[in-house]
Amino acid sequence: MQTETITYDRTIINAALDYTRAAVNDAILALVDEKRAVPGAYQPLYEILADYPLRRGKSLRPTMCISTTRAAGGYGHLALTASAALELYHNAFLIHDDIEDGSESRRGKETLHALVGIPRAVNAGDATNVLAVSLLVNNLTFIGVTKALHVLHEVEHMARQAVEGQAMELDWVARNACDLGDQDYFMMCAKKTCWYSFITPMRIGFIIGSPAAQAADLSHPLESITDFGMHLGIAFQIQDDLLNLEGSLEKYGKEIGGDIYEGKRTLMLNHVLAHSKESARLQEIMARPRKDKTEEDARFVLAEMSACGSLEHGHQVARIHARKAAELFGKMDFLAAISPLRPGERWEEETVDRRFLGELVNYVVYRDL
Amino acid sequence: MQTETITYDRTIINAALDYTRAAVNDAILALVDEKRAVPGAYQPLYEILADYPLRRGKSLRPTMCISTTRAAGGYGHLALTASAALELYHNAFLIHDDIEDGSESRRGKETLHALVGIPRAVNAGDATNVLAVSLLVNNLTFIGVTKALHVLHEVEHMARQAVEGQAMELDWVARNACDLGDQDYFMMCAKKTCWYSFITPMRIGFIIGSPAAQAADLSHPLESITDFGMHLGIAFQIQDDLLNLEGSLEKYGKEIGGDIYEGKRTLMLNHVLAHSKESARLQEIMARPRKDKTEEDARFVLAEMSACGSLEHGHQVARIHARKAAELFGKMDFLAAISPLRPGERWEEETVDRRFLGELVNYVVYRDL
Repeated sequence: MQTETITYDRTIINAALDYTRAAVNDAILALVDEKRAVPGAYQPLYEILADYPLRRGKSLRPTMCISTTRAAGGYGHLALTASAALELYHNAFLIHDDIEDGSESRRGKETLHALVGIPRAVNAGDATNVLAVSLLVNNLTFIGVTKALHVLHEVEHMARQAVEGQAMELDWVARNACDLGDQDYFMMCAKKTCWYSFITPMRIGFIIGSPAAQAADLSHPLESITDFGMHLGIAFQIQDDLLNLEGSLEKYGKEIGGDIYEGKRTLMLNHVLAHSKESARLQEIMARPRKDKTEEDARFVLAEMSACGSLEHGHQVARIHARKAAELFGKMDFLAAISPLRPGERWEEETVDRRFLGELVNYVVYRDL
Repeated sequence: MQTETITYDRTIINAALDYTRAAVNDAILALVDEKRAVPGAYQPLYEILADYPLRRGKSLRPTMCISTTRAAGGYGHLALTASAALELYHNAFLIHDDIEDGSESRRGKETLHALVGIPRAVNAGDATNVLAVSLLVNNLTFIGVTKALHVLHEVEHMARQAVEGQAMELDWVARNACDLGDQDYFMMCAKKTCWYSFITPMRIGFIIGSPAAQAADLSHPLESITDFGMHLGIAFQIQDDLLNLEGSLEKYGKEIGGDIYEGKRTLMLNHVLAHSKESARLQEIMARPRKDKTEEDARFVLAEMSACGSLEHGHQVARIHARKAAELFGKMDFLAAISPLRPGERWEEETVDRRFLGELVNYVVYRDL
């Protein structure tokens, strides 16, 4: 179905992600150890809190944050605390998201609520959130009051967009919405994916890395980053949803797309519900709770998506947004070329920064896992 | 069973609580409206967010915060934003707490997850948390950077203690702990009740109201507040648990103590498990999930508590801590007598402040609802 043969430089992407993952995980585990060592701290909670961070996530958000800091001319290690906070927010969000969606596996293992039950998992998500706040408060020591407060404002905006996007998605599943178009999807995706996973990490990275002290001086580049992240995020999310559908199609015997079972309103599901002649049967299948959907149901939905061009539509829309992101990235001249290492700089990978951000555009659409 | 006839001045307590409740509710609803009015905001989420704040809570935490601000010599309205943030944190905590405990009613109505389902209630709790953070960031405009950051540190500490206390309690229920003594209860109660409901609201109120600019100057009074709040909180929580057991005993036909059904490890339950000759039957009852406990089970547990002196033990321990709190309060001379109204002061109730805080000691132990 894909005719273009664009690839991304896997070496650059993986080196940057691996490097950041290690640094951010160290920071998170040091924080968990610090809080665990407070006299009277309740130890078993901290065992649970170390679980998700120790599973191997992509580390996309921290890497974007630190790369943008460096591409803006700043020292990458100054963004480490904020990056670790973003990763902790992400873990907290995942723990609750998995409960809300009834998901069964996360990063190759059972979801937390499957392991410890919903009550303890709800509390562990809240506790992970507290750790994130603690890092943002610590951040004042590293980057000064003005920047730290600007970062706090960004995080508040991100978190508000994320809970709004989540509320939209949960309401759609609850009312079995079958009347949604691309624009509805973009609105939800902007809130739940673009701000959360792309725009805010890069904006925070730029705020920390930029030499400009006043928020007003940052407004033009921050707006450019927002536009860029919006298109990049939409391309990423559609591709993520396509992988959930098609990745499993190739492997017979394995569960077909968990998203179909969860009733997730992807661009492709909205498209097939609007275009299929079998829409009555599709609606009836989607109305059923996860446990009452059969493998045959899921295969039927997927076959209809294929027949109605819904998958092709997804690929096309993702590519349009990736191209737009690439075009916008070309104009972001306030992001320097790879910044040279300077005295005191602890980040040793020259592959990070602007080149990583550029490759990211291809990565989000052409990655296969 | 109660031989003392100490009462509290209901007028002072109620006037202060009513006054603060109205002001804090206005602040919260204004915030909800502000966020709802942001272009693109997802409206249905904000309908849910206004639910718990509109139910009539006690408003104990904000009232303690504002009263302490005034008793420290500051303008009460400067603590309004922080007080509203504390109330929002409390609402967020209640939403998740109700899910974790499987509670059915809250403030006279169905719990939020009973109304909208667990997925949306988990998300609504997170969203309420985001609103609280937003107020703490706004707080910088009102009380200056130094105090606002001090307040942020206090909130981080409070939230961490709360999730640790919650984790202890959930673990005890999950493993059907039958080997707990008063000291275990005090540790959990310190984290889940004392910091969260008493110490932090008063510490934050003092930080905002105190003329001292440096954190070091505040350390002695803040330590005194911590000691006072610790004893007050323990007295309050035991009395709260006693009301749950005895309040319903008087009203035949109504469900006996929801805490017994939930398996909550109160001081009285720990006592009866340690002292009853029927401990095997008690353990078997408590091991069953909420839905498998009968009214007869609950009556049996309560009758054993009565027979073993567990209820009397609770009353005694509560009174000891209330007396200790009263003694400590007498020494807190850094809290002024009722501060006179000053130009610009928007709080018109002279009953608030030190006199309220003093009456509070009797209120927490001798209140009957």
